Amino acid sequence: MISVIILGAGNVATHLFRAFSESSQVSVKQWYNRNIKIIESFKNEVDITDDISQLFEADIYVLAVSDDAIAELSSQLPFENRLVVHTSGSVNPYDIDKKNRRGVFYPLQTFSKSVTVNFSKIPICLETLTKADYLLLKTLATSISNHTKRVNSDQRASLHLAAVFVNNFTNQLYRIAHEITEAKGAEFDMLKPLILETANKVQEVSPYKAQTGPAKRNDKKTIKKHLKLLDSKEYQAIYKLLTDSIQKTHGR
Amino acid sequence: MISVIILGAGNVATHLFRAFSESSQVSVKQWYNRNIKIIESFKNEVDITDDISQLFEADIYVLAVSDDAIAELSSQLPFENRLVVHTSGSVNPYDIDKKNRRGVFYPLQTFSKSVTVNFSKIPICLETLTKADYLLLKTLATSISNHTKRVNSDQRASLHLAAVFVNNFTNQLYRIAHEITEAKGAEFDMLKPLILETANKVQEVSPYKAQTGPAKRNDKKTIKKHLKLLDSKEYQAIYKLLTDSIQKTHGR
Repeated sequence: MISVIILGAGNVATHLFRAFSESSQVSVKQWYNRNIKIIESFKNEVDITDDISQLFEADIYVLAVSDDAIAELSSQLPFENRLVVHTSGSVNPYDIDKKNRRGVFYPLQTFSKSVTVNFSKIPICLETLTKADYLLLKTLATSISNHTKRVNSDQRASLHLAAVFVNNFTNQLYRIAHEITEAKGAEFDMLKPLILETANKVQEVSPYKAQTGPAKRNDKKTIKKHLKLLDSKEYQAIYKLLTDSIQKTHGR
Repeated sequence: MISVIILGAGNVATHLFRAFSESSQVSVKQWYNRNIKIIESFKNEVDITDDISQLFEADIYVLAVSDDAIAELSSQLPFENRLVVHTSGSVNPYDIDKKNRRGVFYPLQTFSKSVTVNFSKIPICLETLTKADYLLLKTLATSISNHTKRVNSDQRASLHLAAVFVNNFTNQLYRIAHEITEAKGAEFDMLKPLILETANKVQEVSPYKAQTGPAKRNDKKTIKKHLKLLDSKEYQAIYKLLTDSIQKTHGR
């Protein structure tokens, strides 16, 4: 049984609390947040506190806080030589105060408070400074996920950057599609099967092979039509830049 | 029973042939292609021809050919006053030669020859010039899909344009993510659950509500880190443009 204490109360912290609580191999001993009101509704399930001097002893402390808060919070911890990990995609483990053993526990997924997630399919990127800590952290990760992986900070930074492309930027393309269709009284809902199929296709086939459409075919007539239909200069610029990018990739 | 003749042998033609053949309400009477070799392997399932003067009589002729070929092929048809439809997202029904009754049968999906598709979930956009033809075409569409919809040419053009954003452009973002991760020895595979979750989320929640990440939070430190990590000017430009777009959408 691995004992864990969670620090922070954002989406990652909340989803991790749920996942750890459901695992028979993990005991969440305590949940800390600066503002206790946010976690008060959990007080019947776990010991909660807003007093950092009152933290219990545990095998692993998980700092699920914003990137900027990691260094300071870690320096306030009232103990030494315990395993302290953060959950950030872009912060170095060395940002954690060196009085403790340090590591990273980064779940590669988008979390919303209202949407439940199945942790078993979420890749968790692990990094520690020693092998013994790696084994301990890996045991924690495999207790909730079937996809854990040792990832160094450079690789993690590239995954975090790539995640912005496939999640935030892709979602903005969906948003633009929403605007384009609604402007003409067409239904965004009609695009939903295509959105799913596009994501499904690259589960099996590489994005390079999966590409189709006017940019790849260099269908100038359709590209011209589309640019004319877009009355926003911003959307025209996005259309041009991504069309050029596809044509570079596919050697046009 | 509706009788249909398919003209063309690309991905859409092939997938439509399969779907119509499996429907008990449709009889595919003939399949025409200029180059008969491409459809020769189907000769035991359907009458095939490369001679346009030998086309049989049928209720509906489906021109599943490239946008540029629609007008010419329709003018070569050796009959009049029959229902002839094309399958294009961006071509007007009036591009079909006026000696026949005209319409559009546009399945809103991405088709690859090797990937089987479940037509029942694919939206089919229908347009005809008369009500009687609409009822006939709708019967054909509902024989293979549960999502048929009357869509005028302006709406269809906007759906086709929006499809380029959610399919081709999104796929290019996946491609860029592939390059970014592999360049650092990280695995693109680790992004696949996130890709799926991003597409799944907007099946229920609007893309506006689904947005998260550094651009929306205006997390300047992370944005700066990411731009530094991207060594390609092209990818930096895409990152900046889509970050600006997210910030405009979310009022930053």
